[in-house]
Amino acid sequence: MLLERKKITDYFQNLQKNICKSLEDEDQKSKFSSETWQREEGGGGITNVFQDGNIWEKGCVNFSAVSGKMPEILAKRDTFGEGNFFATGVSIVLHTQNPFVPIIHMNVRYFEMNQQKAWFGGGIDLTPHYIQENDAVFFHQQLKNTCDKFSPTYYPEFKKWADDYFYIKHRNETRGVGGIFFDRLEENKDFSWENRFQFVQEIGNTFIPSYLPIVQKNKNKKYSQENKNWQLYRRGRYVEFNLVYDAGTKFGLETSGRIESILLSLPKQAEWIYDLKPEKNSPEFNTLALLKKDINWV
Amino acid sequence: MLLERKKITDYFQNLQKNICKSLEDEDQKSKFSSETWQREEGGGGITNVFQDGNIWEKGCVNFSAVSGKMPEILAKRDTFGEGNFFATGVSIVLHTQNPFVPIIHMNVRYFEMNQQKAWFGGGIDLTPHYIQENDAVFFHQQLKNTCDKFSPTYYPEFKKWADDYFYIKHRNETRGVGGIFFDRLEENKDFSWENRFQFVQEIGNTFIPSYLPIVQKNKNKKYSQENKNWQLYRRGRYVEFNLVYDAGTKFGLETSGRIESILLSLPKQAEWIYDLKPEKNSPEFNTLALLKKDINWV
Repeated sequence: MLLERKKITDYFQNLQKNICKSLEDEDQKSKFSSETWQREEGGGGITNVFQDGNIWEKGCVNFSAVSGKMPEILAKRDTFGEGNFFATGVSIVLHTQNPFVPIIHMNVRYFEMNQQKAWFGGGIDLTPHYIQENDAVFFHQQLKNTCDKFSPTYYPEFKKWADDYFYIKHRNETRGVGGIFFDRLEENKDFSWENRFQFVQEIGNTFIPSYLPIVQKNKNKKYSQENKNWQLYRRGRYVEFNLVYDAGTKFGLETSGRIESILLSLPKQAEWIYDLKPEKNSPEFNTLALLKKDINWV
Repeated sequence: MLLERKKITDYFQNLQKNICKSLEDEDQKSKFSSETWQREEGGGGITNVFQDGNIWEKGCVNFSAVSGKMPEILAKRDTFGEGNFFATGVSIVLHTQNPFVPIIHMNVRYFEMNQQKAWFGGGIDLTPHYIQENDAVFFHQQLKNTCDKFSPTYYPEFKKWADDYFYIKHRNETRGVGGIFFDRLEENKDFSWENRFQFVQEIGNTFIPSYLPIVQKNKNKKYSQENKNWQLYRRGRYVEFNLVYDAGTKFGLETSGRIESILLSLPKQAEWIYDLKPEKNSPEFNTLALLKKDINWV
C-alpha cells in the first residue's frame, strides 16, 4: 500500500516553510518572496525566491505537487512509462554573496506512476567556490550520520552516486565537494514505505544543521575583487552543469515546465574567461585539485 | 569527384586571417591572440581569441581541420555512420562592449565521410541586445543578395532554417533576428561541388560587409547602466541556447573536443534575473516582441 499523498506533501510544504524561516533568520536583511501557482494539467506549487540578501544573493526554496498525464517525451523513455503521474518535492539552490560561503543545493522528492509504482529520490550537495577541507568533512559527516541511522550501505552508496551525478564531464571536474544522491527508493523486504519516507524526512531536516554552521563560519570573511572574480568564474561551471547535465532542469525544459522557477538554480551573474589557469598552489589551484570523484571526506 | 581538401582548408584559413584583420582594424585597441593546436587523432586548428577591445569584449574566430575515426557516440546516430571523417571550417562568435552593437555568429564548414560522402554547411545570425529594425533589414538584405546569386530558393529556405535552428524553445524566443542556416549541401544535378563551394565562400566573404556597417553605425551610441544590465540579461539567453541546443557545442562536449575553444562562444559575463518583465513599450519590451520566427525582414 502506498503512503497517503497528503502526508508527504504536508511534510514537504512544512519543510519549505521551516527552511525559509531559518534562512531569513540567518540573513537578517532580505526575505523570501512567495508566489503560488497552479498547473493547468493538475496541481501547482509555491515558488519562494530570495534576492539581494546579506548572505545570499539569489536563490530559491521551491515546493511543488503536480499531477496529470505523463508527457509523451518522457513516457517514451522506458524509465517512466505511460500513464498518470504524481510528483511532489522541495528544490533548493542558494547562491551566496561572499565567495567563501558555498553554494548549496538540495532536492527531495516523491514520484508516483498510475497510483501503483512509486519511489522517493533526492540529493544534497555543496559547491564551495573555495574548498575548505574541514567544511567538506563537516558537511559529509552530517549526511553520513543521518544515512547511518537507516542503513550502513546508504552513505557509501549515495555518496558515490553524488560523485557520479554532480559531475561536469566535459570539464573532468565534480561540481563541488559532492554530498549524497539517491533515487528509486521503493518499498522492499528490508525497507517499508514508512521507513523510506522517514529517511527522506530526516535528510530534509538535515539541510539546515549541515549547511548553516558552514555559512556562519565563513560569512564574515573578508574577500578581494580577485576572490569575487573567481566566484563568478566558478558560477559559470554551475551554469554549465545545470544546463547541460542536470536531470531536473532537462525534465523542466523538455516538458515546458515553469521556466522561471526551473532556471532559478542559475546564479544572478556568471563569467567565462578563456583558458584560465590559476597559479600553482594558489587557493584557486588547490580548489581545482579537489574537484575530483572518490575523495573520502569522512 | 570530391573537391580537393587543400583548396577548401586554404580558403577557410584565409577567411580566418582576413576576418581577424578587418576586426582588429575596426577595434583599434585589442588584437587576436592566436594559438595553434594539434589533435592527437588527426589534424588541428588555430584558435584566435579576442578579449577586452574597444568594440568587442570577448570573442573568437576559430579555424580547424580535423580528421580521424568517427567517435562512437556520433557514429551510432544514423546521421553520420561509421568510418573516417574529415571536417574543416571557421567558427565565429563575437560579444560586444556596447549593448547597442549586436552579437554576431558565423560558422562555415565542410564535412567528409570515408572520402565518399561530403557536404557543406553553415550559418550566420545576428543577435542584437536591442533590435533595431533597419539593422535587421540591412543584415538580411546582404545575406539575401549573396544567396540570390546561387538560387532563388536559397534565401527563403535558409532563412526559415535559421528561424527554426536559432530558437530557444523553452523561452519561446528566437535567439536574435536570425539570418541563414544550411546543411548537407551536396553535389547534385543542379549544383556542382564547385558551385557549392563557391556559395560557401561567398557567404564567408559576406560576413564583414554584412556586420561591420551595423557595428560602425552603433558603436559610439551612449548607453546607461540599465542598457548594460539588459545586455547581461540577454547574454544569459545566449548561454542557454549554446549549452542547451547548439549542435556544434553539443558535438564538442560529447566528443570531448577542445573545451576552451568550444565554450569561447559564451560571453565574458551573463546574468539571470528572476521573472524579469520589461515595462510595456520600453525598448526592452519591443525587442522581446521581435524575437519571433517568420518575420520577413526583406
